[in-house]
Amino acid sequence: MATGARRLVPVSWRDVTVAAGFWGPRLATTRAVTLPLEYQQCQQTGRIDAFRLAWRDGDPNPPHIFWDSDVAKWIEAAAYSLAVQPDTALQAQLDEVIALVVAAQQPDGYLNVHFTVVEPQKRWSNLRDWHELYCAGHLMEAAVAHFTATGDRRLLDCLARYADYIGTVFGRGEGQRRGYCGHEEVELALIKLFRATGEPRYRDLAAYFIDERGAQPHYFDLEAAERDQKPLAPWYGPRHEYNQSHLPVRQQTTAEGHAVRAMYLYSGMADLAAETGDRDLLAALHALWADVTEQKMYVTGGVGSSGHGERFTSGYDLPNQTAYAETCAAIGLVFWAHRMLQLEPDRRYADVLELALYNGALSGISLDGRRFFYANPLLADPQRHQGSFAVERQEWFGCACCPPNIARLLTSLGEYVAAVGQGALWVHLFVNGEIRATVAGAPATVAVRTAYPWEGEVRLQVLAAPAAGLPLRLRIPAWAAGATLAVDGAPCPAVADASGYLTTPPLPAGATAVLTLPLLPRRVWAKPEVREDNGRVALFRGPLLYCLEELDNGPGVDQLAPVGELTAEWCPDLLGGVTVLRGQGRRRVSWSGELYRSTPPAWEEVALTAVPYALWQNRGVGQMAVWLPDAGQA
Amino acid sequence: MATGARRLVPVSWRDVTVAAGFWGPRLATTRAVTLPLEYQQCQQTGRIDAFRLAWRDGDPNPPHIFWDSDVAKWIEAAAYSLAVQPDTALQAQLDEVIALVVAAQQPDGYLNVHFTVVEPQKRWSNLRDWHELYCAGHLMEAAVAHFTATGDRRLLDCLARYADYIGTVFGRGEGQRRGYCGHEEVELALIKLFRATGEPRYRDLAAYFIDERGAQPHYFDLEAAERDQKPLAPWYGPRHEYNQSHLPVRQQTTAEGHAVRAMYLYSGMADLAAETGDRDLLAALHALWADVTEQKMYVTGGVGSSGHGERFTSGYDLPNQTAYAETCAAIGLVFWAHRMLQLEPDRRYADVLELALYNGALSGISLDGRRFFYANPLLADPQRHQGSFAVERQEWFGCACCPPNIARLLTSLGEYVAAVGQGALWVHLFVNGEIRATVAGAPATVAVRTAYPWEGEVRLQVLAAPAAGLPLRLRIPAWAAGATLAVDGAPCPAVADASGYLTTPPLPAGATAVLTLPLLPRRVWAKPEVREDNGRVALFRGPLLYCLEELDNGPGVDQLAPVGELTAEWCPDLLGGVTVLRGQGRRRVSWSGELYRSTPPAWEEVALTAVPYALWQNRGVGQMAVWLPDAGQA
Repeated sequence: MATGARRLVPVSWRDVTVAAGFWGPRLATTRAVTLPLEYQQCQQTGRIDAFRLAWRDGDPNPPHIFWDSDVAKWIEAAAYSLAVQPDTALQAQLDEVIALVVAAQQPDGYLNVHFTVVEPQKRWSNLRDWHELYCAGHLMEAAVAHFTATGDRRLLDCLARYADYIGTVFGRGEGQRRGYCGHEEVELALIKLFRATGEPRYRDLAAYFIDERGAQPHYFDLEAAERDQKPLAPWYGPRHEYNQSHLPVRQQTTAEGHAVRAMYLYSGMADLAAETGDRDLLAALHALWADVTEQKMYVTGGVGSSGHGERFTSGYDLPNQTAYAETCAAIGLVFWAHRMLQLEPDRRYADVLELALYNGALSGISLDGRRFFYANPLLADPQRHQGSFAVERQEWFGCACCPPNIARLLTSLGEYVAAVGQGALWVHLFVNGEIRATVAGAPATVAVRTAYPWEGEVRLQVLAAPAAGLPLRLRIPAWAAGATLAVDGAPCPAVADASGYLTTPPLPAGATAVLTLPLLPRRVWAKPEVREDNGRVALFRGPLLYCLEELDNGPGVDQLAPVGELTAEWCPDLLGGVTVLRGQGRRRVSWSGELYRSTPPAWEEVALTAVPYALWQNRGVGQMAVWLPDAGQA
Repeated sequence: MATGARRLVPVSWRDVTVAAGFWGPRLATTRAVTLPLEYQQCQQTGRIDAFRLAWRDGDPNPPHIFWDSDVAKWIEAAAYSLAVQPDTALQAQLDEVIALVVAAQQPDGYLNVHFTVVEPQKRWSNLRDWHELYCAGHLMEAAVAHFTATGDRRLLDCLARYADYIGTVFGRGEGQRRGYCGHEEVELALIKLFRATGEPRYRDLAAYFIDERGAQPHYFDLEAAERDQKPLAPWYGPRHEYNQSHLPVRQQTTAEGHAVRAMYLYSGMADLAAETGDRDLLAALHALWADVTEQKMYVTGGVGSSGHGERFTSGYDLPNQTAYAETCAAIGLVFWAHRMLQLEPDRRYADVLELALYNGALSGISLDGRRFFYANPLLADPQRHQGSFAVERQEWFGCACCPPNIARLLTSLGEYVAAVGQGALWVHLFVNGEIRATVAGAPATVAVRTAYPWEGEVRLQVLAAPAAGLPLRLRIPAWAAGATLAVDGAPCPAVADASGYLTTPPLPAGATAVLTLPLLPRRVWAKPEVREDNGRVALFRGPLLYCLEELDNGPGVDQLAPVGELTAEWCPDLLGGVTVLRGQGRRRVSWSGELYRSTPPAWEEVALTAVPYALWQNRGVGQMAVWLPDAGQA
């Protein structure tokens, strides 16, 4: 049920089945391939055994300050997975890991491997840099997922004890530290813990961390002074922009600093606003949302354009080749958009959620579930000395945040599909499967049959409904002008209201609504202020952004201007089944000898094939381009 | 007289007067402002007093390994200047500095401040990194300039002694080191020393350094092993590409590594080929010339696109905003082109020389002679976090190679104007002033009157000629189709031969040839392979590249597409008198709200004013763009 300002409550991932269609095979691969691989990586790199607390001074491979979070995200993903698909091997691994984690908790409730065995004397001495509360937050999220999946309270109780201990250390009371974490995460995790346990003190601790952030005198300066260090590390910005503590959060109007941190903070702020209805928080969130989506977001839904500091830069600074657009940041944007949608049912949040999910986040993992992008460029050229990092997915990273993050996003995909509010079932994402909710106090079940986004037809069959019928609120994406609706074969008005959602009549059990979204290939332009995209055009079909790969188009893909109409073609044997876009293009013809000349280049006509951006680099390493020359005027 | 393969011998800077016109005021400023300022900087930073050898362990400000070269370039520039314009203050400074340098020479002939007072035990122990022979080379160039300017042998004899000592240390004989310098320079300097003294051993030492480069076993590896260091510093490339020792020079076909080093090496190679007629060396030079000018040279004549290693990268990798294009590298290209021209009278060398001189080199110094660019980007935006380095000229640099380098280029400008060969006087550059040469054993003097490159008329009045008359060979730049010639008012055929030079009839004293070059504004396109320039156009008039500055055009200068004809307008009060280009342009109109949309942007018409690239950033800090959207098809 909605509390405070929370107007839509998501249907839990536990109650949404995702099967077949676009996502079913991807989730199956995540379960069958990615989760075991990530367990293996965590095992081989020592991340899991680290919880045995056996490391001693002089031993090799000291547990790193952020290892706990990698294991926590794996636990979270495994829990999501097990709840909807039993797997005895995974269950055994999960039980073993959880037992290790629980056993690693200290008598006072503290739970962090690095600061228990490697540098115990430095506990809480550098909140700015050392991810201690960040790791705590990820363990809390894991605990809530595990409890929700299994009903087993072991990890939940363990993390609740840790949260209680954290609550004694931090706060405004006598003898407490007025600190907060340099890498936000614990805030949204504490709200999850509050919702799972019903204990308001966790919400209040989240509120403390959010409210205290950026207060003066600045905690990170005081803390640095205690360590006899200069107040600011060089990349932190003149006022701690790097970790969003340059101002109290309610005064922040522009997205600054490390993008993942920003996304997690804004998610926590939205969670808190959902609980408290805090209008100042909401106003800040609105300003930040506008700043990100109107000036600082790639057309992939990626955010954080600079690899230097993994951060936001100035407005419209969205270079394509050097785009950082970390996978975790796009995932964070999914989180934040999802929470904004709970506060305000408005498709602009769901459209961004869908954009980031289908493009900038999904690009982070290979089709076979084995390799990962950390950075997600929009223009790739292996010849241009980028290093393999940005042009080829990797098996793992020393800083391994992205692989388990994409795993937990995919295994909890159901969470983002639907919500309940205002007596209706809201459908945000068109995902083949089943949605089981409670609407107006009664069970409401909807089977969704769709090949979206390959095809535009979405069949929603009501399997169970309240006595008065089940009104569906269906999102009409902003790009989907001309959508149509039929109920039990009869055309209905398909007009979305100001929220961007259309409302069906109350549907009885057995009724079927068919929403048809037109999936015409379309061109998209960026605001001219985005220098690198000016004079260029991007190709979409539905929510999917397309790109050109060298494999299909030869070298110089970023110089190939689409001309005229594009056609969509289903290729069942390509990339696991994919709709490609085909059309004519043209490119400038080169000449020999002199590099510069006074006659303009001639044009040659060439065929053009575009594949979904999220699926690039699944067939080898080569050039890739999203933004193509705009030959629109030709 | 031409020796070996040297087909054109430049008329010495000593015998060319540069006055009024385009260059006169710039050279006057160099003399009146830049040379005193650079003396002052060398003085204040301790570079000059370092030659007193008074530094002792524990003292502050230890003389740096490359300080000697900064002072040497200042001496060289001061000598050029004094020879054509007496200046008692400058003369006194020069005498004082030269006395210090000469006094710093060690009994064995060695002459290097750092390795005399700071790390004497490390003499010759790291040729790869420590610039020892590079400093020697610059001192030799200074000595030759000073001797040529004054007839005073003090510095020349000193450096000849040093060269003799170097010749005992390095070579293939018993007990000699088979080394060569990591930063080439001494090679071309030794050829200058050979030409000034007539001593073949200096030519032979230059030949040794050039021939030994890149031989196996690799000297820098052996040397590193002696220092117990890993063979390669990380940025040196897998095979010492950084300093062009990855292969013997005759096997090099692509320009690699640090651009200034490459230009100095290729210059030295061309000097050696001029003396020896070595065909293999010439073949390598041809391949390198094609590689640089057909794939790796900015339209400014700048080379070395990457600031990481100040180096060449792969072909067509010429990013505009991050262009390094070091001032010294453009100067080095002037040096190299000038030497190629001596080997082969062909305008393609002179055209590149002129391009680099009027654009990528000249941009390195402010109009007032007080500030310098180290990097010369083709796209500047102060908002884009580049640091002031690339968007605003600086007063000095810790690594101060560029300021004295541009000073010595400008003060020796006369050297590049004309040459003697095949019984004719060749005029490469159209510079207002006077050329005094010896042709066919007789004095030949030509007064040149021109406002080029502001105006296309070049009047060449013969003041003295051999009895049979003086044939002039006048360069017709590749862009100057439609050039006309008149002799004493009568039209003559103005057809250049295969060399790109036209030949006048033998002119008697008193005759006047008037060459008129059409200076129509023109558009230039880059090969489509240059990604950042594809779909873009650059503007030229004569040899001058133009650019748009924010000051004249408002923000978003790189988005302003020129449309239709451009007109040239002389503005006597702007930038010391400048011809600007004016025309119509158009740019895409922005919208509010969403960053991406499915309707193309509209266009707005705007007026456009372009100024010479070399003169940008003389009126404050702002955006600048060279490559503009190509609206040619509109």
